[in-house]
Amino acid sequence: MTERRGSGPSSAVIVAVGSELLTPHKTDTNSLFITDRLNGVGIDIVQKLVAGDEPRGLASALRYAMTAADVVIVTGGLGPTADDVTRDVVADLLGVPLDESADIVTRIRARFEARGLEMPEINRRQAAIPRGAEVLPNPAGTAPGLWLTAGGCRLVLLPGPPRELRPMFDRLVADRLAAAAGGRRVQRRTIRTTGRTESHIDELARPIYGPLAARQPSVSTTILASLGQIDLHLSTVGADPAEGGRVLDAAVEELAGVLGSCVVSTDGRTLPEVVGELLRRREARVAVAESCTGGLIASRLTDVPGSSAYVHAGWVLYSNQAKVALGVAPGLIEAHGAVSEAVAEAMAEAARVAADVDFGLAVTGIAGPGGATPEKPVGTVCLALAARGAPPRVRRVQLPGDRERVKFQASQAALDLLRRALLRAPSTGS
Amino acid sequence: MTERRGSGPSSAVIVAVGSELLTPHKTDTNSLFITDRLNGVGIDIVQKLVAGDEPRGLASALRYAMTAADVVIVTGGLGPTADDVTRDVVADLLGVPLDESADIVTRIRARFEARGLEMPEINRRQAAIPRGAEVLPNPAGTAPGLWLTAGGCRLVLLPGPPRELRPMFDRLVADRLAAAAGGRRVQRRTIRTTGRTESHIDELARPIYGPLAARQPSVSTTILASLGQIDLHLSTVGADPAEGGRVLDAAVEELAGVLGSCVVSTDGRTLPEVVGELLRRREARVAVAESCTGGLIASRLTDVPGSSAYVHAGWVLYSNQAKVALGVAPGLIEAHGAVSEAVAEAMAEAARVAADVDFGLAVTGIAGPGGATPEKPVGTVCLALAARGAPPRVRRVQLPGDRERVKFQASQAALDLLRRALLRAPSTGS
Repeated sequence: MTERRGSGPSSAVIVAVGSELLTPHKTDTNSLFITDRLNGVGIDIVQKLVAGDEPRGLASALRYAMTAADVVIVTGGLGPTADDVTRDVVADLLGVPLDESADIVTRIRARFEARGLEMPEINRRQAAIPRGAEVLPNPAGTAPGLWLTAGGCRLVLLPGPPRELRPMFDRLVADRLAAAAGGRRVQRRTIRTTGRTESHIDELARPIYGPLAARQPSVSTTILASLGQIDLHLSTVGADPAEGGRVLDAAVEELAGVLGSCVVSTDGRTLPEVVGELLRRREARVAVAESCTGGLIASRLTDVPGSSAYVHAGWVLYSNQAKVALGVAPGLIEAHGAVSEAVAEAMAEAARVAADVDFGLAVTGIAGPGGATPEKPVGTVCLALAARGAPPRVRRVQLPGDRERVKFQASQAALDLLRRALLRAPSTGS
Repeated sequence: MTERRGSGPSSAVIVAVGSELLTPHKTDTNSLFITDRLNGVGIDIVQKLVAGDEPRGLASALRYAMTAADVVIVTGGLGPTADDVTRDVVADLLGVPLDESADIVTRIRARFEARGLEMPEINRRQAAIPRGAEVLPNPAGTAPGLWLTAGGCRLVLLPGPPRELRPMFDRLVADRLAAAAGGRRVQRRTIRTTGRTESHIDELARPIYGPLAARQPSVSTTILASLGQIDLHLSTVGADPAEGGRVLDAAVEELAGVLGSCVVSTDGRTLPEVVGELLRRREARVAVAESCTGGLIASRLTDVPGSSAYVHAGWVLYSNQAKVALGVAPGLIEAHGAVSEAVAEAMAEAARVAADVDFGLAVTGIAGPGGATPEKPVGTVCLALAARGAPPRVRRVQLPGDRERVKFQASQAALDLLRRALLRAPSTGS
């Protein structure tokens, strides 16, 4: 696992400590952040562990982790209470005593005094340092981090709260790990797509990314599917970031060319961010009229900072009465049903006119579990986009999954309809 | 770690296999489901591991896991491709050959034929069984599970996709693990609260749950804080589920009494579900008018199946013009600003009247990062509830965090304002 040991650390294990991480309610997420940062300097994560607050189990987990990689990052268990045993277990494991650091006591006391409080005696535990450890300052909390070396393995202890851990880790990587890792850097690109299945994307992209893996430097590719979105992650590892960047840019250009208009972004932006930027660039505004998505499209559009520049108003038209009040003809609902292309189109135009904006975007569908008919099963969704001075775009889709999955995918399809109109691309995923 | 070995398995380690689980993009979530089910029969999770598809690392992870608990649950790596090495690694670890099961080949072939396809040769790998393993049928996929025993440790291999794993695991627990675990059962209750801080809940509840831990059977308590919500999880372990249930019901009653109107539910229901049920019970309907939440309140209300019975319509009033169009007096916005108690109240009443319903719920605030003033910093949010034939309820809150956190907490505070009105409880968290 540690083939590259000669040239500095190349592999790491992350150990998350805390009995709450062994319940059905809570999972370790610090490791995703840490993985991102370590990958960035060419260090792979080879395993992850979660251990509880029980000293014997934690000791065996740490002993195992130190056999599995060059670097072991331990998060959590540095608090002041009796449950916080990481310091004690590590000292015991390395066979060194714990010394109280007067400096750290002073720093912790000052943090309390700044808030007009006296330091509880219990916080002295956080100043106990396994002999030989270097202290990593924690500007956002009382628990300092610790850096130890044992048998060629670097052991790094960090506090669990993300707002303490993250800035400490970024400084640690910048100051120590990047240099130790011998200047290798990972470069990454993400091609985000929507409107196609994972297998379809793979079929289109594989003839390109297959050969890329064989080149020098090699480009590795991962396909990650999430709801209504397929991402292609490309990365390359090497000592020359400029060369890696050039290789990746060329790969992204080639892949994006083949994938066509289903590519949402190649720089990590989300679909609502991309739609927002396209609207802003055209100085256009949008109003939404939502039935089955129930406000989700408007909420996702307004998750983007600055969206008030192009989101004017939205309507949640859950009842037929509400649809009619905005301007949908009752006869249209009677003739075609509330879930129909005709009603979606009328909702979109009604929203556009009522808000007096450039685009009206509408969704009506059956999110389930109730409301289905043989002709319109759960997941039947009609989408429409009305545009000032242009013909409307209307689509009908059949979406899989439960209520919340149908809602999200419908919002994704609607936002994509608007994106394609703004790009003057065809409405379907071609 | 395995003190109760004499009375059947009491501890388990979960090993998730897959290199994608060691990237910054994806985390193991199967273990939360498995933990819930194993806890339910009195088996604790003592550690969790994630290992990649590399055989040497996976072998050392499995070897370690088998020293750490009575039961080792391994998920993933049972697919048909060369990357799927769990079967091979386990056979090698136990020193047994892999035999091809003609039965399983037949079953896999039949699955393909049912879809009019020929079984690819590669799928034969899924019929390779380490000698001595029992086969656990997989009704939802091609990869069967496997049950092995080695040195007193039960080793269970299961496929990674949740829709295959979950039904298989439930049958496994019902058929084997519960009996092996000697009939111990974990009982659980959750008290869900909103509108108070974690430390406030702890301060109120500790005098009750502290002594409960010392009783027989003992009740353990965990406080879990998430955005805008604090949950108290209570559990008890014992051979007599009726006794455990009685003890927990009494504990829930006592705690709920002390916590008062901040208790949203004691049966796992979410705030939108509770609000929905209160509206349904009173045959009342609600309309929402949202500025900074941008449709999130309506979307959360309509996440609940059957919500069309009480959600009539919603307005996203992002611009002042949209607020005025619904009926907010322009002079009110000029005099108090768009983010003000007065404008929130006017929005709520305008929505109520326009929709002709019992309740109008409105939010206006500064989600950030832009739009703040010295008097109205980011996170300033005004909430109002208009009710037919009752005085309005108006609140102003100051919420921490970034744009999405402010939006969510504002939606939570608004839904809680409606919940309290429906319960005729005071509007603040008392």
